[in-house]
Amino acid sequence: MKYVLGARCVRCGREYAAVPGLTTCACGGILDIQYDYAAIRRDFSPRVLEGCRDWSMWRYRPFLPVEEDSPAPPLRVGWSPLYRADNLARTLGLKTLYVKDDGLNPTASLKDRASALAVVKAMEAGADTVACSSTGNAASSLAGNAAAAGLRSYIFVPARAPKGKVAQLRIFGATVVSVEGSYEDTFELSKAAIEKWGWYNRNAAINPYLSEGKKTVSLEIMEQLGWHVPDYIALSVGDGCTIAGVWKGLKDLASAGFIDKLPRLISVQAEGCCPINRAVQTGKPWAPMEEDTLADSIAVGVPRNPDKAIGAIRESHGVAVNVSDGEILSAMGLLGRTQGVFGEPAGAAGTAGVKKALELGLIPADSTVVSIVTGNGLKDVANGVKAAGEPLSCPPDMDALLSVFRRAGIAP
Amino acid sequence: MKYVLGARCVRCGREYAAVPGLTTCACGGILDIQYDYAAIRRDFSPRVLEGCRDWSMWRYRPFLPVEEDSPAPPLRVGWSPLYRADNLARTLGLKTLYVKDDGLNPTASLKDRASALAVVKAMEAGADTVACSSTGNAASSLAGNAAAAGLRSYIFVPARAPKGKVAQLRIFGATVVSVEGSYEDTFELSKAAIEKWGWYNRNAAINPYLSEGKKTVSLEIMEQLGWHVPDYIALSVGDGCTIAGVWKGLKDLASAGFIDKLPRLISVQAEGCCPINRAVQTGKPWAPMEEDTLADSIAVGVPRNPDKAIGAIRESHGVAVNVSDGEILSAMGLLGRTQGVFGEPAGAAGTAGVKKALELGLIPADSTVVSIVTGNGLKDVANGVKAAGEPLSCPPDMDALLSVFRRAGIAP
Repeated sequence: MKYVLGARCVRCGREYAAVPGLTTCACGGILDIQYDYAAIRRDFSPRVLEGCRDWSMWRYRPFLPVEEDSPAPPLRVGWSPLYRADNLARTLGLKTLYVKDDGLNPTASLKDRASALAVVKAMEAGADTVACSSTGNAASSLAGNAAAAGLRSYIFVPARAPKGKVAQLRIFGATVVSVEGSYEDTFELSKAAIEKWGWYNRNAAINPYLSEGKKTVSLEIMEQLGWHVPDYIALSVGDGCTIAGVWKGLKDLASAGFIDKLPRLISVQAEGCCPINRAVQTGKPWAPMEEDTLADSIAVGVPRNPDKAIGAIRESHGVAVNVSDGEILSAMGLLGRTQGVFGEPAGAAGTAGVKKALELGLIPADSTVVSIVTGNGLKDVANGVKAAGEPLSCPPDMDALLSVFRRAGIAP
Repeated sequence: MKYVLGARCVRCGREYAAVPGLTTCACGGILDIQYDYAAIRRDFSPRVLEGCRDWSMWRYRPFLPVEEDSPAPPLRVGWSPLYRADNLARTLGLKTLYVKDDGLNPTASLKDRASALAVVKAMEAGADTVACSSTGNAASSLAGNAAAAGLRSYIFVPARAPKGKVAQLRIFGATVVSVEGSYEDTFELSKAAIEKWGWYNRNAAINPYLSEGKKTVSLEIMEQLGWHVPDYIALSVGDGCTIAGVWKGLKDLASAGFIDKLPRLISVQAEGCCPINRAVQTGKPWAPMEEDTLADSIAVGVPRNPDKAIGAIRESHGVAVNVSDGEILSAMGLLGRTQGVFGEPAGAAGTAGVKKALELGLIPADSTVVSIVTGNGLKDVANGVKAAGEPLSCPPDMDALLSVFRRAGIAP
């Protein structure tokens, strides 16, 4: 790993060699991968990228902690579209809005970025089996990426995980344990099982490589914007690993001279489960919360990466905004109707947060904002129907159609 | 449209000018768009494509019937991944297999290619409203692409359409009419409504431009293979428009000198609904069939494009193979377990057909085959669960996990 210096604990500062099976610090703190930015700057630049035809997260290899001869895993992860969302910006009264649709990754969520990296590290470690606990997306992405690479997977999900995500897991051939309990219970059981059987651990807060995969979403956003830094990047927050990864990517780019300033983060959580935002808003240490939201991917009452997440929000002079389930459902409809993008509840929560931050005056209307849609709405069809309603039922007859339209107040 | 000569009826040969609102011939026959291949050959080549950074279906503009100054519609359609599927090839006993995952398009099916084209033609025609009938995918793709482009949409689906597809439609803001009847009933009602209200017609068999969008899947496959022509391209067939489009794309490439031979098509239909394959197999004219298959996207008892489809299969010296619902479900699991690709039933049917064609000796084991996965499994989670089974339920406790594993015969 030509550009990796090692790993450093975000809590106590202790340093480690970047071996493939690295987990947390002896003090319990989470590790952060360190790079030689001067060396990256020497070999890599926006100019080099102009000639690169690898349209996946692996176009950013110098920023990734993998061996030079490790092959990229089979599924094509990354380079999701960044749409200029003028229709939605107009509706919200915002100057400039971009929507990054990361639901178009192979298993339909941003988590593919972390799982692709996990698969490479598992192969480097010589493992044949990978495991994780997850609210759903990390799980299905791990199962899919592992299957394509010929690895076995054991997956622990809370029983509440939406059907779409569980169906993916089973289709990808994972052994799936549906845990009758909270995400916290699920996490603890997976931890015990991983220790017992020695599987490669893809729990994002424990495995320091995973944020490094997630950060590629920032690298892409910046390249897709021609390295023009937006004012804000908004996304939903659960465990805290994704926002930590997003921030790491931005700082990497600044450290290596690709961008000359940093955007501010908009951290969006659900009102019914916002331990990270509450800590940011009150200035107090974070404390566990109930998991009371329909946005299952961010229903994390005991976040596993609060230090990095809270640090990222504060360091970016970020905005923390909580949204109700109703606001999330409404944002799902807005994104779909105005831009043709279908996000799952947690995927659309970022957009709900942008709307609310504007309404609360937390961000100015003349801002340029990027909203990351972290997962595809097809993963959670029940909430899609809740957000958008049922279709009109009609017998196959023109007179019947006329009366159905009339009753529904539709005048074509 | 620099390279478009016009449109010609596939039945009577009558020629038409390629106006945006073009539908069928006066004789009822389907029209086919004609190009000036000598002109294309002069201006366009694999070499020109090497320098093209537009990674979407619009990289093939000279092969598309749109005005030069028509902007590409907002959603990023096309350039889906083509995976070399060695794990699956080994399992099937096939020399070389590629899987084209077209479920990674913006609304998660190949139909986005046709709908993106429909949206451009609707804008060229000055329409503000588009409409279609569909088993589901054409509908959701039209609704999504129309929403992003600021057009209204009216969509007619049979009541049996899977929930995921209907949820997409509603999220994209379409007016959705769920028709209590067959696909044929749905088609007829949409036709009457389109005539009454003058909406832009995206019914694929009626609108000759849509196959032209679909054909981009062939152009991509060939470019992704470095213009090395495979022995076979396999895909599922319902209405017949997609296989007609696939064939048109291949012939376009041959006519313009991009490839020097043509592959053979493997047309896969469900045993319970195979009017097109039955015509090919028996040499008799096609006749309607019941729609008896769980693969909803290809449950088309009265195909709307039999002429072009049957012509394409015959002209390519193709193979027609019918698969049972059990074989389709089994192929869904196979694709997922071995390659990390989750196809909907009709999406995996092509792969089921490859397996069966091999078993029946219809294709040799030393062939190179491309199997197109036409839609994402997340659209039809119920059948995903049917294909792959439920997860293991477990209380959050290590002893419980041990006994769950023991009972399930799992020894990690």
